[in-house]
Amino acid sequence: MTQSAAIADLDETEQKRRSEADRPSSLVEHFGTDAPLNLDSGKQLAPWQIAYTTAGTLNADKSNAVLVCHALTGDQYVTSSNPVTGKPGWWSMMVGPGKPVDTDRFFVICANVLGGCLGTTGPASINPETGKPYALSLPIITIADIVRSQAALVDRLGIETLFAVVGGSMGGMQVLEWAASYPDRVFAAVPIAAGARHSSQNIAFHEVGRQAVMADPDWCGGNYLVEGKNPKKGLAVARMAAHITYMSGQSLHAKFGRNLQDREQLTFGFEADFQIESYLRHQGMSFVDRFDANSYLYVTRAMDYFDIAGRHGGVLARAFKGTKTRFCVVSFTTDWLFPTAESKMVVHALSAAGANVSFVEIDSPRGHDAFLLDEPELFATIRGFLSGAARARGIPGPAESEAA
Amino acid sequence: MTQSAAIADLDETEQKRRSEADRPSSLVEHFGTDAPLNLDSGKQLAPWQIAYTTAGTLNADKSNAVLVCHALTGDQYVTSSNPVTGKPGWWSMMVGPGKPVDTDRFFVICANVLGGCLGTTGPASINPETGKPYALSLPIITIADIVRSQAALVDRLGIETLFAVVGGSMGGMQVLEWAASYPDRVFAAVPIAAGARHSSQNIAFHEVGRQAVMADPDWCGGNYLVEGKNPKKGLAVARMAAHITYMSGQSLHAKFGRNLQDREQLTFGFEADFQIESYLRHQGMSFVDRFDANSYLYVTRAMDYFDIAGRHGGVLARAFKGTKTRFCVVSFTTDWLFPTAESKMVVHALSAAGANVSFVEIDSPRGHDAFLLDEPELFATIRGFLSGAARARGIPGPAESEAA
Repeated sequence: MTQSAAIADLDETEQKRRSEADRPSSLVEHFGTDAPLNLDSGKQLAPWQIAYTTAGTLNADKSNAVLVCHALTGDQYVTSSNPVTGKPGWWSMMVGPGKPVDTDRFFVICANVLGGCLGTTGPASINPETGKPYALSLPIITIADIVRSQAALVDRLGIETLFAVVGGSMGGMQVLEWAASYPDRVFAAVPIAAGARHSSQNIAFHEVGRQAVMADPDWCGGNYLVEGKNPKKGLAVARMAAHITYMSGQSLHAKFGRNLQDREQLTFGFEADFQIESYLRHQGMSFVDRFDANSYLYVTRAMDYFDIAGRHGGVLARAFKGTKTRFCVVSFTTDWLFPTAESKMVVHALSAAGANVSFVEIDSPRGHDAFLLDEPELFATIRGFLSGAARARGIPGPAESEAA
Repeated sequence: MTQSAAIADLDETEQKRRSEADRPSSLVEHFGTDAPLNLDSGKQLAPWQIAYTTAGTLNADKSNAVLVCHALTGDQYVTSSNPVTGKPGWWSMMVGPGKPVDTDRFFVICANVLGGCLGTTGPASINPETGKPYALSLPIITIADIVRSQAALVDRLGIETLFAVVGGSMGGMQVLEWAASYPDRVFAAVPIAAGARHSSQNIAFHEVGRQAVMADPDWCGGNYLVEGKNPKKGLAVARMAAHITYMSGQSLHAKFGRNLQDREQLTFGFEADFQIESYLRHQGMSFVDRFDANSYLYVTRAMDYFDIAGRHGGVLARAFKGTKTRFCVVSFTTDWLFPTAESKMVVHALSAAGANVSFVEIDSPRGHDAFLLDEPELFATIRGFLSGAARARGIPGPAESEAA
């Protein structure tokens, strides 16, 4: 079956998503064979492209740019509506006019990660050598590769030093990688609900997800796009398992407990008797329409490979030695995917490196996902930290800039 | 394909396991159509059978019987070698001559659970009405059903009151169910690493496992046995996800960390670079040979449905009102599947019910699985509690019984 014939069989959301992989609705920067991206694997990627959105206005001295880094299944649509799902930007509460990351004051950039599926080069992109999707012929991507691609974008935009790099979860990993790899280009760094490495337990959960995808015969050894298939069941199982890790036991208990779904009594069957089952199945099914299975493999692998200290003789502080970046490290009390201990490890390393670092552990029952939710203490923390850093960098406040 | 033709294609371990489903190597009690088992679903099971082992000697007044209840994927081979895997009994460290559950003193009974796959009636058993395996035509089983089947076995053995019921995890659920349903037949109860209900998070993990099994096309809507298939990939993924929950983040970190498997460097691929990946894959693959996929669905469902308080107007203490059973409740500090809070809920309810209860939280880094491992404090706790209870019941110690 040809790829276009196969696409004709897909539902609208999936069709839209597949077309976004190469021709995104957002802005996109193309890099030709003269500007290859050097990858940690030793391979090069060329041509390649990076899809991104911006919000706010870059000031004259280009000192007010904030790079927002997205998490595992996020995208560049941080404040604007996602063209596939039609949903509002994933961090609309955090980023926008008057919001903690204030687009009246800052110029916000958010790029789809390398290996992703919404316009930046990834396994669903067309491999120029074959005219077919890369699938597993795409080299393995690392967090450092993702950051290198973002640096190339920032270069294109003519920005020397980012005012801030902000992100949660895998976004927080990128923040730390930016600070470690480009210390002179990051004025302020905000890693939220993240760590400087992926733990054994986290690798384990990712491996379960990958095995679930690969166990699905519709995965076709990675070639489902040309085969006109989609490993929906496997990817849904992967998402369900991952989703549990994004919530705390406490929040699952508070939200669902043992409540039954649309029924008075147990059915004595394998239907979704419990609300939590129904909720998880929905999470799994809605995910597969908006995300590419191979991207899931690549991006989870990027997280697994992340270990900043590993590149510095096991001493995390060495990665940040002499840094002038100011840090605000944030964790949540009930986050068991990136528990406070992982953030504290970062804080201790930064302190040992002599960095300017503040640390906030936010009391929230909502687990890892708290960073995406309505958490007033998080908003206040980010707003306060960025305002202070902006004053230190001489970026005028919104009122001042209007007056100017 | 006929079932026997299909079986000819299976490897030896799997063949052995399938034959154990109806004709176990262990002892087995058969119940005919005159002795149906009443199930919580309102259905009846007849004929049915229960497979079990015993160790030690029942004393003259039948006062020294200890029922050991196994966990989700356990079996009746608590001290003797498993006929499928050839491995030693799963609780050989706990049960045996001179061990904490001392078979020189006690008569130990351990039965395969209803819904299981090693000889007690389960979905792999032949449905007498069709001559084919039950598969999904077996009614849903509950923990109370499992306990009811054990009570029928204990009746057959002519034992009025069990000296003790002991078990960990799902075994601990059975212990609590015994104490709640047959208070006069349980002298002492030892629920370890368990709770009186299955939490929302635990139901969630089970649902992921079930979806992984059902997503495997070789599951064949449950009819894989007659189709000559085995949903190995799906069941392996289910086991992998579950296995993570049996260990603590701490123990995964200590055991595997980010260590690489048989290599010096990352391979930049999807092979099992990390030891934890290799370990999990092994856990998944070795599980599918020894366990039936439909049994996995049924037994996880039994755990999900478990909620003693739910049957007593939401008040757990009511389930144990006036009980004369003495309890020893045990939890482990790093068990996040059945955290100490769940055990404490049981302890509070028992105290409110006026029960004789002791509670021990054991400091162990090993998570939920600690109950199966070499944990001296656990052994000392069980030994001490059972010795005291035995004295209270007038069961002679091993030396005294030899002298007698």
